[in-house]
This record gives sequence, structure tokens and C-alpha cells, in this order.
Amino acid sequence: MKPGPTGAGPDSFDFGGVHVSRILITGGAGFLGRRLARRLMSAGGSAPSLTLWDHLPFEGPHGAKVVVVDLLDDANRSAALTGGVDAIVHLAAVVSAQAEADFDLGMRVNLDGTRALLEACRNLDKPPVFVMTSSVAVFGGDLPAKVPDNWAVRPASSYGTEKAIVELLVNEYSRRGVIDGRLLRLPTVVVRPGRPNQAASSFASSIIREPLAGEGAVCPVDPATPMWLMSPDRAIDALVHALALEAGELGLDRVISLPGLSVTVAEMVAALQRVAGKSVAELIDWTPDPAIAAIVQTWPGHFEAVRAKALGFGADTSMDEMIEQHIRDREEHQ
Amino acid sequence: MKPGPTGAGPDSFDFGGVHVSRILITGGAGFLGRRLARRLMSAGGSAPSLTLWDHLPFEGPHGAKVVVVDLLDDANRSAALTGGVDAIVHLAAVVSAQAEADFDLGMRVNLDGTRALLEACRNLDKPPVFVMTSSVAVFGGDLPAKVPDNWAVRPASSYGTEKAIVELLVNEYSRRGVIDGRLLRLPTVVVRPGRPNQAASSFASSIIREPLAGEGAVCPVDPATPMWLMSPDRAIDALVHALALEAGELGLDRVISLPGLSVTVAEMVAALQRVAGKSVAELIDWTPDPAIAAIVQTWPGHFEAVRAKALGFGADTSMDEMIEQHIRDREEHQ
Repeated sequence: MKPGPTGAGPDSFDFGGVHVSRILITGGAGFLGRRLARRLMSAGGSAPSLTLWDHLPFEGPHGAKVVVVDLLDDANRSAALTGGVDAIVHLAAVVSAQAEADFDLGMRVNLDGTRALLEACRNLDKPPVFVMTSSVAVFGGDLPAKVPDNWAVRPASSYGTEKAIVELLVNEYSRRGVIDGRLLRLPTVVVRPGRPNQAASSFASSIIREPLAGEGAVCPVDPATPMWLMSPDRAIDALVHALALEAGELGLDRVISLPGLSVTVAEMVAALQRVAGKSVAELIDWTPDPAIAAIVQTWPGHFEAVRAKALGFGADTSMDEMIEQHIRDREEHQ
Repeated sequence: MKPGPTGAGPDSFDFGGVHVSRILITGGAGFLGRRLARRLMSAGGSAPSLTLWDHLPFEGPHGAKVVVVDLLDDANRSAALTGGVDAIVHLAAVVSAQAEADFDLGMRVNLDGTRALLEACRNLDKPPVFVMTSSVAVFGGDLPAKVPDNWAVRPASSYGTEKAIVELLVNEYSRRGVIDGRLLRLPTVVVRPGRPNQAASSFASSIIREPLAGEGAVCPVDPATPMWLMSPDRAIDALVHALALEAGELGLDRVISLPGLSVTVAEMVAALQRVAGKSVAELIDWTPDPAIAAIVQTWPGHFEAVRAKALGFGADTSMDEMIEQHIRDREEHQ
């Protein structure tokens, strides 16, 4: 199964030989959760039976079931799983700057919440496909210019630590046959819609999104900072592709560093200027924030991603196109 | 501070500028715990105030305090720490084959127990030096002939997974200033005294120890299997050296792959024959055990250990000497 073209509708995914009819998405109210749900439901008659979990009520796309579940509440979580499930896409998480500011909260949600969900899978009739996202934040310290697939993780943040631990758990629960895991190390997703959040990477979307909306945005890092990026459409392609991969293609290591686009912050802004003009790019206020810069600087700006490419995962090829994708998105959802 | 010669008594260690007067050893009744306690107490007047924890009562060396503590019991553990401590050597663990056979037990002791101990350190007046052992079992999958310090962990066992997770936790709690961690990836320690245990590596001591005692021993792996070994004396040297290292020498990465001796199982037995004669080596029964072999085969047989050597950690240089060390040990403790 190959990722389809951007938002191409029903034919943009199929699950080949993999029988995945009941899909559960945690963090269903989040940006990726909502977008993945829309993509899955766009398959019309061949759309899966889709359940979206989040800890607060929200409105899901037509045809999807919405459930309010506290991931940390054993009874609540188990009850919500009793109907059975073929695949789980676990996206619920506390973002990076928030996990750094509140260590206990990050550990509870990102580590304990995930472990509890994996434990709950022991009660299912058969191992569900378990797709989850990790992050470039698992890396830190001295890094080669291009990080190879076999490079040691060395997180320099609580968020990165929690994701690195969960990578190990997903591999272990897969090895033990509790789940059939696929863990994607996502590049920083740009351009996210909506408002800034507490992710340390939030600025990377803000410096494109806010100027395009005629608003100012603060860039807290040096223009020379290298970034490893992926557009929302490619991220959803990757999640759908991960759902459809055959377990036999993966072996014991279920952690996949996804391909991405390597650009500096200066190159991002140059693209914004090419696409939208100088006056738009000038809405960016270059005010360093040492706390944000300290976290972002530990993230690598380029990966080899040899294995991911061999497995059929694709990457964006141009910052200009990523900005144009965001402009199209805004127009569609206004 | 340099590791002293084998069992050289009071001068074999000193803590330089590091103020470590109250030391706690968990797993104090275990093989390494007992031996470390003896070494520390051998310093006479300059010996630290030493407390040994274990979950069952046992007799410690003269001058050391023995406490029965359930690591998983919050109140029990916290009460035992209230006196304050300058350094913790955390050795309590469920061994590899046992953790593989009983997943829940291994997770509870090796992961939850360690995390609970790290959490308890948040209540101490100042971050204790926290020395802990990890293992070659954090590695698996396709490995280069010599594993570099920057190679990704990829455990192929529950024990390896638990140790890899704890490595991340020790780094994170150190980064947050809760502890001052030093995590040593120990080679397989050979020759252990006593009886076989449930470690998958138990045979590596058995095939030397039992024949030397005139008993048969089963070797469950292929003679060509490469092993990465360290003698008990070098392991204790490493723990003492880790206690005395300055935090500034370590930076953010507190995980250290120790140097070792790389030999095949066949070379181990050839050394036994050189030291003790052919009739002794012939007491080994070469009966493969696929379950043990499957675990041991995932462990690398050679590491670069560049960083550890730069930090002053030493290795054994000959299998013959490791066997002679065991013969001396037996004579001393009979």
C-alpha cells in the first residue's frame, strides 16, 4: 500500500490484506486525530468503524463515534475497549514545553497513560495494530549532521524521555504479541492550523501561519536553526501507511524515523516571502527565547531515514509547497 | 581516582573531593552488593557509613547496617531513606530469564521499583550520587562486530527493555537535578560464586565454577558464541570508580558502556583447560537450550567503550586470570 496523493479521498488509502475494520484514535480531538479521522471517513462505504477518544467532549466527523475517556482511569479505559478494536492510533499526549514545565503531568500522561493502554490490550481477543507517534525530541547531545537510523537516543527533555521510553514499551509489547506496534518518529509538523500551543516547536507553525493571517508572530530561535519538517498531509499519509503495513515487513524493531524536509528557520521564512510577499514575512518578530531555543537546539535537523523510505514512507519536497498546502487548508475550512 | 589493584584493602579506593560518607546499597544481599560492601568497609577508619537494603533479612559485613526494605512499598521505602544518604548503589533487580518468564514481576521490580526509588530521592536534601548497573541486554538486532558508544539500544528481552528504560530515567532524573546518576552497562560478570541463578547468562559462570568444584555443568549455547565479560573484582572496581567520578566529567549522558574482555565460549573453556586441566574441562555437557541461546545470541560480544576508558574504567585482560581470581576467591571464602 502506497500513501495516496494529498487529500485525494476514498482511493487515497486502502488496507490491502490487513483486516482493520474497527479503529480507535486517542487524542481524537487533537489536530492530527481530527485530520486522520476525516481522512479515514472519506473512504465512504469502505470507511472503518471509527471511535475517537479524548478526555473532553468534542464533535467528531460524520459517522465516527466520540467517547470521553480518561486514559489514566483503569475502569473507564477498560470499559471503553470492551467492544473490541482492530487498530489503535494513540495520539493523546502532553506536548513538549508543558511536559518540561510539569514533570509529573508529562510522566503520568505520556508514560503511564500509554503503558496503561498497552496493558489494556492484553485483554483483547487478538493483538491490535498499534500506531503511535514519537518525536525528534528523543535525540540530543552531540549528533552527526544526518542522524542514522541506528543512532542512540539521548533525550534532553522530559517529553523526549517519555517518548523514548514509550518506544521501548511499544517494541516490547509487540515482541510479546500483545500488540502489533508501529511507532513513527514524526518530524516537526508544519504548518499546524489553529493557535500556538505549549509545544516547544509551536513557533515553527506560528511564523508561517500568523503572518499569513495578517498577524505578528515571534520567532524565539536563531534563523540558522535547522528544522526537520513534515506537512500535515504527509503526516496523515504516514499514519495511514503505518496502519496498513504488514507486520512481517517490520520485524522486531517497530520504531521508524520518518523522512522529512531539512530546512533552516531562515529558509522557512524565505519561502514564506516567496509565496506571500515581503510584507508578510516582515510580520515576524525575531525575539530570542532562551528556554525554547535550549529545547529546540537539541533536536536534530536531518535524518537518514533509510528504513522508512524502504518501507514506503514519503516526505515533503519543498517548503513553498508546505506553505501552499496550509493556504489551501485555510480556505477549505473557513 | 583510579581503581586500585584487586582487593588491595584500604588504599584500593578513595573518594577524592567527592563527599560520600553515607552510602546505601539496594540488593545488598546479592553477589555484587555483598562484595561491594566488603570492599567499602575494608577502608577501616575512612570507611563510609554503610546501609544495606534487601527484601529479606541477611547478614552484612561488620560495621554495616542491614535493613529489610520492600522497594515497592512507598511508606517502607521512604521511611528507610529519612536518615538521609549521600550515595545510592541500586543493585536490586530481577534477573534476565526470570524477567522473561514473569513479565509483570520484572516490570514491577526492575522498572517500577527503580522509578519509585528515584521518586523518593526528590525528598532528599541534596541529590545523591546514584550508581546503578545496566546490561549488554539493552542491545539486540543487527549489530556491528564492535558496538560503538552511540549505537541505538534495541532490547530483545523484557530484562533488556526494563534496563533500557531505567537508563533513560536515570539520565532524566539527573538532568532535573534529583540525583547525580552514573549508570554502568556491565559486561556479563564471570566467575560468579555460589549456585546457578535464573539469569540467562548464568551458564557463563557455571561452566567454569562447577567443573572447578568437580561437578558437571551444562553449556546451553554454541561454543562459537561471543561473550563480553568482566570479573567480579573489576566490576567492584567499576562501581567504586563510578561512586567517585566528578559529575562534571559526565555531562548530560550518565550511561556508560564499560570495557570488557571479548571471548567466545570455546575460548573460555580452553582457558579452563589451561588453568585446571583437560579432565576438568571435560565435565562440561554441551547440551543446547534454545530458550537460553535465543536470549544470549542477541547480546553483543564486543564494545568500543571509548568513553568508559577515557573516564578511567578498566577491563580484565585474560580469561586465565579471571579463572585464577575465582580460584583465589574460593580459597579465601572457604
